[in-house]
Order: sequence, then C-alpha cells, then structure tokens
Amino acid sequence: MTSQEQDPSQRKYRILRETDLRDYLAGLPPIVAQLGGSPTDWSISEVGDGNLNLVFLVKGSHGGIAVKQALPYVRLVGESWPLPLSRAHYEHLALVHQARLAPKLVPAVLHHDGPLALTAMELLEPHIIMRKGLIAGTRYPRFVDDISTFLAQTLFFSSDLALTAAEKKQGLAAFAGNHALCKITEDLIFTDPYRVAEQNRWTVPYLDATAAAFREDLDLHVAISRLKLKFMASPEALIHGDLHTGSIMVTDRESRVIDPEFAFYGPMGFDIGAVIGNLIMAYLASTGHERSPGERASFEAWMLETIEGVWSEFSRKFLALWRSEAKGDGYPQSLFSGEAGAARLEAERQAYMARLFQDTVGFSAAKIIRRILGLAHNIDFEWIADEKRRAISEARSLKLARTMMLEAPSFTTIGAVTKAAREVRNWQPDFAG
Amino acid sequence: MTSQEQDPSQRKYRILRETDLRDYLAGLPPIVAQLGGSPTDWSISEVGDGNLNLVFLVKGSHGGIAVKQALPYVRLVGESWPLPLSRAHYEHLALVHQARLAPKLVPAVLHHDGPLALTAMELLEPHIIMRKGLIAGTRYPRFVDDISTFLAQTLFFSSDLALTAAEKKQGLAAFAGNHALCKITEDLIFTDPYRVAEQNRWTVPYLDATAAAFREDLDLHVAISRLKLKFMASPEALIHGDLHTGSIMVTDRESRVIDPEFAFYGPMGFDIGAVIGNLIMAYLASTGHERSPGERASFEAWMLETIEGVWSEFSRKFLALWRSEAKGDGYPQSLFSGEAGAARLEAERQAYMARLFQDTVGFSAAKIIRRILGLAHNIDFEWIADEKRRAISEARSLKLARTMMLEAPSFTTIGAVTKAAREVRNWQPDFAG
Repeated sequence: MTSQEQDPSQRKYRILRETDLRDYLAGLPPIVAQLGGSPTDWSISEVGDGNLNLVFLVKGSHGGIAVKQALPYVRLVGESWPLPLSRAHYEHLALVHQARLAPKLVPAVLHHDGPLALTAMELLEPHIIMRKGLIAGTRYPRFVDDISTFLAQTLFFSSDLALTAAEKKQGLAAFAGNHALCKITEDLIFTDPYRVAEQNRWTVPYLDATAAAFREDLDLHVAISRLKLKFMASPEALIHGDLHTGSIMVTDRESRVIDPEFAFYGPMGFDIGAVIGNLIMAYLASTGHERSPGERASFEAWMLETIEGVWSEFSRKFLALWRSEAKGDGYPQSLFSGEAGAARLEAERQAYMARLFQDTVGFSAAKIIRRILGLAHNIDFEWIADEKRRAISEARSLKLARTMMLEAPSFTTIGAVTKAAREVRNWQPDFAG
Repeated sequence: MTSQEQDPSQRKYRILRETDLRDYLAGLPPIVAQLGGSPTDWSISEVGDGNLNLVFLVKGSHGGIAVKQALPYVRLVGESWPLPLSRAHYEHLALVHQARLAPKLVPAVLHHDGPLALTAMELLEPHIIMRKGLIAGTRYPRFVDDISTFLAQTLFFSSDLALTAAEKKQGLAAFAGNHALCKITEDLIFTDPYRVAEQNRWTVPYLDATAAAFREDLDLHVAISRLKLKFMASPEALIHGDLHTGSIMVTDRESRVIDPEFAFYGPMGFDIGAVIGNLIMAYLASTGHERSPGERASFEAWMLETIEGVWSEFSRKFLALWRSEAKGDGYPQSLFSGEAGAARLEAERQAYMARLFQDTVGFSAAKIIRRILGLAHNIDFEWIADEKRRAISEARSLKLARTMMLEAPSFTTIGAVTKAAREVRNWQPDFAG
C-alpha cells in the first residue's frame, strides 16, 4: 500500500506521536523493508534539535531512517508563531532537485506524505552536524570538494545559464508559495538585527554598545537593505536558503546537506555566503574553545584554507559547467562564436564571477551579524561558557562583518577575506569604550 | 446569461468569424446594452493591424466596443509559428491590474472569456495609435503627464517598495506562465539582431555594413547579454512588456495604454526604455517625413522636451509614491527613522533612481536596435519611402543606440540623452564606407 492508497481518513494532517508513527510506517512496504524486523521492535526517538520541526530517528533490525514532520508553528517559539505546513512540500521538491544534481550529497528520500507534511529519509550515520565537529576542532578533508560540488551543481543547473527561460519561470513559480519561510529570513537576517526588535539578543553587557551602534549605522542600513532587495527580487537559481554548518552533516569521508525547507529561487550568493559566513564564525569562535593558548592553531589554519577552498573550488567548478553545459537562454553561444567570441565570453564569465563574489561577501556578513545580534544564535559562540571570551569572538566577527558589508568591492579575492579574518582574530576589543 | 452560464459547447476555443461573433455578443447583456439596437444592425469589422491577434470593432446604435481574440499562432507569420492562447488570460490580468492603478489610462474591460481567449473592451474613439500621430507631426500635450503616471503607478505599486514579499511572489507566480511571450522578446530584441538570423532585415544596401558590424561587435554582445539576463531574472515589477508608441492610443486630451499581453514581472527599465527608445526613433525619423527642410523643427523640439519629460515626470512621481506609499518589504522605514535616517533614505532613493536610469538607457537602446536590424520594424522608418533617407534616419538611430548601450553610465541625466540625440540628428552617415 503506497501513500496514495491509504485510507483517506489517515490522509489529513495530524501531529504524529511515536505510536502513531509506528503504525503509519508499518503500512509503508519500502520503509518496512528498509528497517527490517517487526514494527513492534523498532526503536523510535524524537530528537528535535531543529528550530521548526519534529524529527524522529527510527531503527529496526536491518537499518534506520529519519522522519521529519513539519509542525503548524515554529517549534522553538510555539503556537504563537504559526508557520505553514507547505514548507514540507517545498523541502521535498528541493531534495528531489538536489538529489538529481548532487546525488550523494543529500539524504535519499524514501517516502513523502504531503497531507502529513512528512518526509522519511535515509538515516545519516555516523554523520554529525558539522557545526559541532568544528567546535570540537575536527577537520573534514572531504568538505571543500563536497560543498563546492553541491553549490556548483545545484546553482548552475537551476540558473539561466543552464535552463531555458520557460523552464526557469516554471521552477520559480513552483517555489513562489514558500514565502512564509522567506519572510523569516527577510525579518531575522535582513531587518531585525539593525533595529530595536523584541526578539534580538546579544552577549550583555559586552556587546551593548556595538549592538546600539549597529542600530544607528545608516551606512549599514543602506547596505543591508540593498542585500534584502537582492534576496527578494533576484531569482538567479534554486537556492537552499539556510546553508549554514548546522544544515550540513559530515564524517571524515562524506558530507550531506540537509533541511532545504527555505528553498526558493533567490541569489546564488546567499547560499555561498551562508557557508563562508558560518565558516568565518567557526574560525573566530575557535579561540574561545581552546584550553590552552595556541592549542587550535593548526585547526584554525585549516579553517582559513577551507574558507579559501570553498570559494575557489566553487568558482572553478561553476565556470567549468558554464563552459561545457551552457544550454540555457542566458549568454547565448551564438553571440560569442569564433575565437574572439570565445575569449570575450570567457572574460565575461570572469566578470560574472566577480559580481557573484561581491554578493557572497555581503551575504556572508549578513549571516554573521544576524547570529550575534538577532534572534537565532549559534553554538559556535553559545558554547563558549565564559561570556567575556564569547563576546570577544563575537566582537571580532562583527567588526569583520561590518567591513565586509560596507566595503564588499574592496574584497576582490577570497584571500582578501581570509587575510582580514586572520587580522581581526588578534584584535582586542575594548568593552569599556 | 453571463459567460459562466453559456452552453458548454460554446466554451471551447474556436476562431470567431464576424457572424459567430455577432451571435456570441448578442448573448452578453452588458455588451448588448453598451452597443444598443438590434444585433443584426451592429457593424462588425476586423481591423487586425496587430501582429498577433484578431481585433474586431463592433458598433451599435448606442456605442461601440473593441473585441480582441488571440489566435493560436502569430498572425503576422501564420500557423508555422504557434503561440499559446493563454496570452489572452495574462493580458486580461494585466488590464485589471493597470485599471486599478491607472484607471483612466487603459481601456475598460467589458467582458473576458478565457476559453475563447477573447476580451471585449470599450472602443477608443477618436483615439489614434500614437506612432501614427507622431509620424504626422502631431503633438500630444497630455502625453507626458499620462504616460509618466501610468509608469509610476503600475510599476511602483507592483514593486517590493509597495508590496509585501508574499504579495510580490504571488503576483510573480501568476504571470510566470506567460513565458512564450517573454521568449519572443528574448529572441527578437535580445539575441537575433546581433547574429545571423533568417528573420532579420534592414534597409539594404545602405545598412549592410552596419548590420554586419553589429553582428561582430563583441562589446555590444556582452552588453545585450547582460540586458537579456536582467530581462529574464529581475522581477522588479509587473511590466507591460511591449510599451512602444504602437501600444499607446491618444487624442489631444487623453492617452490610453493598450495590448499588455507581454506582461510579466520584469525590470522596470524595460517599460520606461520602451517609451523613450520609441520616442527617440520618432524624433530621428522626423526628418524623413518633412516635405521641406526644417519644416518639423518645432515638432522635433517638442519631441526632445517630451523625452525629457517622460523620465523626469516618471522619476518625480515614482519618488513621491515611494515617500508616501512605501508599504512594501523593501527598504523598511524602521531602518531609517529620525531626521538622519530620512535623509539617508532619500539619498538612497536617488541612488536607486540613478540605477534605474542606467537600465532605462540600456533598454531604450535595445528597443531601437531591434526595430532597425531585427524582424519587427516600425512605420516611423518604414513610411519614409525614399530608402536612402530612411537609412540615414536609421543609421543615426543605430549610432546613438550603440553609444547608449555601451556607455550607459556616461548618460547620467535624461538631458545627456537628448543632447546626444540632437547631435546625431545632424550626423551624415557615409554609406560608401
């Protein structure tokens, strides 16, 4: 019995408890085969470490699965903050898209139930959330290659460089309904950290003055408003929309990108910037996690190499795709024929990447600032128990992010970004000031 | 009996002939009331001066209507070039949007039939197509005020400055299906004039060398490709999409914008550029229509004032709306509070308009080039019977357009554009060269 054939009474949304879930899964032959053994023997635990959804891990005698069910509200906040169940539909659409383009870099979908807003996926084991690994100082040798492939493949093949304009518009329309998730980003990343907002928080009292300065800094307000407009009205590609290190699961041998429920057609730089911004925070938080000075020096050097590698490998792979797979309506080959045409198009590709890098620098900065002055913080900083040490790492991150956002064009290479990060790493903020 | 209640057999698409149309309209009470008299006495004539559709003028004893029916192919070319009937749906949607925002500047819709791809509108009488009036040297004192209101109102109120991001995405999705019409623009404006294409034509032999030069000019190919990408992936507002002087009907007392079947969410500069590019062509064609040298000097001076007025009045009205009606998610007021915030936001508004002007200059140029080297020409030039005189006006237009497209940032004011137009007006091309 597939989900299409189920009793219609089961096809209405309800929040699943563990026993309901067991009965529900027992009716799905592919799931039963994947898990093995008798349903009564399956272990089911709700891990729920996300901000929005229920997440169950289910294990049988043969294998395991992860089951994600959307709640009609933001789990972190409760029923007072409703959020449409349709996000499960968009997440499923995005997973299918990503699985096609980056097949081993996302969890395989085993089952999707639209009315229940539920998706069952392969269990990623022994993967851990990358953010936790970075806090522990673990290096991931596959990461640069994997994430750059994920970014290059998913972004290029949903762009005007690979699609006809008609295909692109169809895709865009298919994700236009996911606006409630976009709105979270618009508010929490592009607006609230720069104004008085009830949900904002920061490490008091150390960052009080900086937070106040950001709320008054009109240059920043113009810069973030331009980025917000780009986020809202630049459908360059189908982006993941929430690609921080908490949305990446890793082992030392592989990487998987999870949780694309914020997916929509937006600016490519938002995804690339999410990765780079979160790596910068991991780098600048690192000192807060050391037990003795300099203990994590070689890890930090690896972090900087990783940041450089993400952009340079993404850029190399994206350009290679553009040279060989440009079947889209953008930059038609027929306008760049012959040797001179090919050379001019190549120069234009480089110019395109330079503009994309500017966007990436700006969005990286926005992602950093929201994690320190806005609602949703990250454990890179939160797990630094000493609040002053935490505030030092955060202040350094804010200082770098402000420069990146206001002077994005002065960062013409990823090396310029890591150089600035290295410099700010040793800056001592004066909290008395 | 409304269209919803008709016999279902009548609700399938069929191409209406005059007698079918009479029977069909006789079943629509609001139409019968508008026309007056007995249906058998109505006069029906198919005027069909568009490139795509059937257009009937129907007159009764009391009043008249215009009826537009889409054909499943491009009328100008025939059944070998199919085109979806759905364009009538998008045209109707756009007319409703425009009627709400610019109520007296579009024809009132009296009836729409989706399956028949048919719309009945008020008959515009004694309006004439503006392009014809300009060829005759007629001035339209209401035009600048009307078209600038139309542009400011329709563009501002469908932009991120006036809408929430959710409303904007809903609108965008509603028009995403109109991609076949967009594709015509992408091919005929943004690609074909710059490459060998069977449908291209130009005034031979005079423009042979120029046409060849445009096909080889890689700077132009980069510039037009950037504009094409902007057209495909910058949904700034619901644009008309084909706003040339053949889509505007005028008297000396009013102006109406017709035929928005190319409507979709695209860059605002494309609409403004369409108006300005077509006015520039009317200005540079003017000398071709004079019977004695200098005869049309004061008309030409009015044309230049009109070009300046379109941008400056559009800009003034758009800015005024932004100051008073900014209820959208873009540039949130809360980030620009207080006197300093208001001043900074005002400076950013000016910067936004400067960027929009650059787009406008580029799109104006693209609209000029396509009318001289592409498939669809315009009667401003075509009605200059002496081919050499025609070619002189066209060569001047191409020279100006090339400069506008390649050096758009050097045109910082509309005055710089009219100055360049005035200068090129007296340039003598050397067709021997």
